[in-house]
Amino acid sequence: MDRRRFFRNGGLFTLGATLINPFESIAGNTLDTGTLNKNKKAKNIIFMVSDGMSTGTLNMADLYLNRKTGKGSNWIQLYKDNRVANALMDTSSASSIITDSSAGSSSWGGGHKVKNGVLNIGPNGEKYMPIWQKFKKAGKMAGCVTTVPITHATPAGFCVNNDSRNAMEDIAEDYLRLGFDIMMGGGDDYFSADHRKDKKDMYAEFKAKGWQVARTRQEMLATQPGKPVLGVFEHNGLPYSIDRRSSKELTDKTPSLAEMAQKAIDHMKGHKNGFVLQIEGGKVDWGAHANDIAALLYDQVAFDEAVKAAIDFAEKDGNTLVVITTDHGNANPGVIYGKNANDNFDNIQKFTQTNEWILNEIKPDFTTAKVRELIEYGNSHTVTEEQAKEILSHYTALEKKEDGLYNYKNLPFKSFAQMQQDYTSVGWISMDHSADYVNLAMFGPGSELLKPFVKNTDLHYLMLQAAEVENKF
Amino acid sequence: MDRRRFFRNGGLFTLGATLINPFESIAGNTLDTGTLNKNKKAKNIIFMVSDGMSTGTLNMADLYLNRKTGKGSNWIQLYKDNRVANALMDTSSASSIITDSSAGSSSWGGGHKVKNGVLNIGPNGEKYMPIWQKFKKAGKMAGCVTTVPITHATPAGFCVNNDSRNAMEDIAEDYLRLGFDIMMGGGDDYFSADHRKDKKDMYAEFKAKGWQVARTRQEMLATQPGKPVLGVFEHNGLPYSIDRRSSKELTDKTPSLAEMAQKAIDHMKGHKNGFVLQIEGGKVDWGAHANDIAALLYDQVAFDEAVKAAIDFAEKDGNTLVVITTDHGNANPGVIYGKNANDNFDNIQKFTQTNEWILNEIKPDFTTAKVRELIEYGNSHTVTEEQAKEILSHYTALEKKEDGLYNYKNLPFKSFAQMQQDYTSVGWISMDHSADYVNLAMFGPGSELLKPFVKNTDLHYLMLQAAEVENKF
Repeated sequence: MDRRRFFRNGGLFTLGATLINPFESIAGNTLDTGTLNKNKKAKNIIFMVSDGMSTGTLNMADLYLNRKTGKGSNWIQLYKDNRVANALMDTSSASSIITDSSAGSSSWGGGHKVKNGVLNIGPNGEKYMPIWQKFKKAGKMAGCVTTVPITHATPAGFCVNNDSRNAMEDIAEDYLRLGFDIMMGGGDDYFSADHRKDKKDMYAEFKAKGWQVARTRQEMLATQPGKPVLGVFEHNGLPYSIDRRSSKELTDKTPSLAEMAQKAIDHMKGHKNGFVLQIEGGKVDWGAHANDIAALLYDQVAFDEAVKAAIDFAEKDGNTLVVITTDHGNANPGVIYGKNANDNFDNIQKFTQTNEWILNEIKPDFTTAKVRELIEYGNSHTVTEEQAKEILSHYTALEKKEDGLYNYKNLPFKSFAQMQQDYTSVGWISMDHSADYVNLAMFGPGSELLKPFVKNTDLHYLMLQAAEVENKF
Repeated sequence: MDRRRFFRNGGLFTLGATLINPFESIAGNTLDTGTLNKNKKAKNIIFMVSDGMSTGTLNMADLYLNRKTGKGSNWIQLYKDNRVANALMDTSSASSIITDSSAGSSSWGGGHKVKNGVLNIGPNGEKYMPIWQKFKKAGKMAGCVTTVPITHATPAGFCVNNDSRNAMEDIAEDYLRLGFDIMMGGGDDYFSADHRKDKKDMYAEFKAKGWQVARTRQEMLATQPGKPVLGVFEHNGLPYSIDRRSSKELTDKTPSLAEMAQKAIDHMKGHKNGFVLQIEGGKVDWGAHANDIAALLYDQVAFDEAVKAAIDFAEKDGNTLVVITTDHGNANPGVIYGKNANDNFDNIQKFTQTNEWILNEIKPDFTTAKVRELIEYGNSHTVTEEQAKEILSHYTALEKKEDGLYNYKNLPFKSFAQMQQDYTSVGWISMDHSADYVNLAMFGPGSELLKPFVKNTDLHYLMLQAAEVENKF
């Protein structure tokens, strides 16, 4: 007897007293994905990284969307619809059980675990050829889009070799030399003659070699296929999604991640040998480093909109492998048990600004009333008089200044996040990466190769194999 | 061309310059599980719950074992070997995005989301028949083993209906009335005439109805199939695994979770209609509530040994569905980035006692030297003089006493865990459950029904369907 068929046609369950036949909702057929893609080659690969995304970040974005709109995230919907293979991934580097983003991207990019801080360079100086170079040599177009500097660790790990992820000025030159097809994000500091140490005008150099250079959202939308594209929209990272949404100026000036992803796909999809594209939600990681819930959550949602752009294309195309994952956990955020947890978590729906925006607006001469008013403006909730006083003290007392990876202004991110917990119920273990295994989904041809647990380095070889590109480099 | 076969036989990869052919390590075939189990009926079901297990807990146990022994956890090995279907699971209850253990177990047990604190009772008093009763009616044997009281929320959610999880004395009577076949764990407080409010001697009542009653590990090992078994080995929960391991008395007196699991399997495996068994690592949750890393980690490892017992049986048997999961996250622990993270995490290998044991040993009249010596004894590392002073203050100053779900003695679990972070690199978001989606693995017939994302309630119907038991109750 075909048990599945028997149940599907009614069978035993219709005899039962259960009002709802739950069968259709659970009767996944794990054969579908595999059968569908078997022996099919991935002409294109889209590799999506929500940088620094702990399980709680994936979960909160789905919960937030579900509670606000009645429909969860695109990522989790792929699971519900049984359209992807899924796995847990080990993320360790050569030097630590906890990776940084350069070693994380290098593991996928070069197929070898390297030390934290390094881009595709081995312990004895070996240069592991980055995978986007391999695919270029195999005749494909290749590009990256991100919300952090385009020279940052995650795109760089697919493109270049360097002893240090910090060599972002050199990396900007490498991109030109290597001739990637579309590279977009932030990072004016590493391209502009005004900010580079060597005063080189990299924009002029890219233009001289035939690149289209976009510095605003409108310029980006106006680029055309045929000539490579460099898009640089901010000094450093692009604005957080929620701050961008709250500012007409920022919305006009900078594209969303989904807009950059769509442009990159449209730019390369006509290529006869196919293309490879990395899409990074890079500021999800920065939001986690700052324990900045609105930054984190809304950038994860923005990443999820890019997931839709990628899957919509891949679905129509039929020859595209989409990998959706993260390089490591960060801060392990989660919604904490308590009688107001639901309402508190829903409060985040009313937020209009990141903590970064709020804390940058506060000046040492503010009154506590003004601090409280400002937080009310950004959070539709505010802190107590005493908490406002505590926040202000971080601006006036040197010994109270906080530090942190992206906190060069020494703002009180940690203290503020702890206070916000009273009206968000969101907690954090730290302001740094974690060793947690991370979530990984694959859609399309090649996804049938995924096991339930993989090492980060495995993905390098899986991509080559899925695309049937010989690893002869 | 059969691409998989082509690659497996060498093909493109052997032409390459890569020294190690990584193909065999990644070439999962997601068809295997499904094909293997298709149209096969689950005669037996083993449902394993590591209560309150965040992703970080699963991850740290695997990392710990890997670094100590060179071989990771049995759970993750099943993923590596591509022998299970895996998914993420939503864990919410009817009253909150964050469940407690009674609503969590009821979701699986009754197939309906109920309010936190409740066992299989709906909003209008509906009694949802618990799944182990359904399977009993279908002719199977049914039992539960746990490291917390056997009357606690997770076993109770598969067995009984009650407005309150706290009615553990009533639940003890329900077990007798309903005639489950093997029930073992802690909980003497709810069986003994000395501790029950009604002074009933439940042991005598169980014996009178033909049960074998075991009160020690030796008595448990001596029980025989043929007559039902009640095993109660402690007043409340069983000792944490690491404290048990460090005490000959405790090792002699109380069984490990794997020993109870093995006994339960052996007790029921001969039954012609099959059996169902719940195995709970209940104190993983308690360890998380206490931010007690040694309690948490070593109990997760003990749970993992029970996974081995279950899979070894299921593999030989061929007709057993094994579900391995948790009811909710708790405290979202994780190893935090930093230059000493590896060494710090490895320090936990040298721990010999839980924080619970250490903090219970400290008395208000201790000197700081004595506190530091005691911590050195349990952790092979100790706190600073100032930290020892801070710990002592919690024993003497009323306003410093901490509370918490299982912290009735008001010991300074939170403060101590924060200090330990200096030599463990492990952080926690809180001392309570989280809303995180959780990991779920399935082995054997029925596992082909699992989708990559499920609701907790889905598992109720999946179990019935896998076993081809009509839901007519």
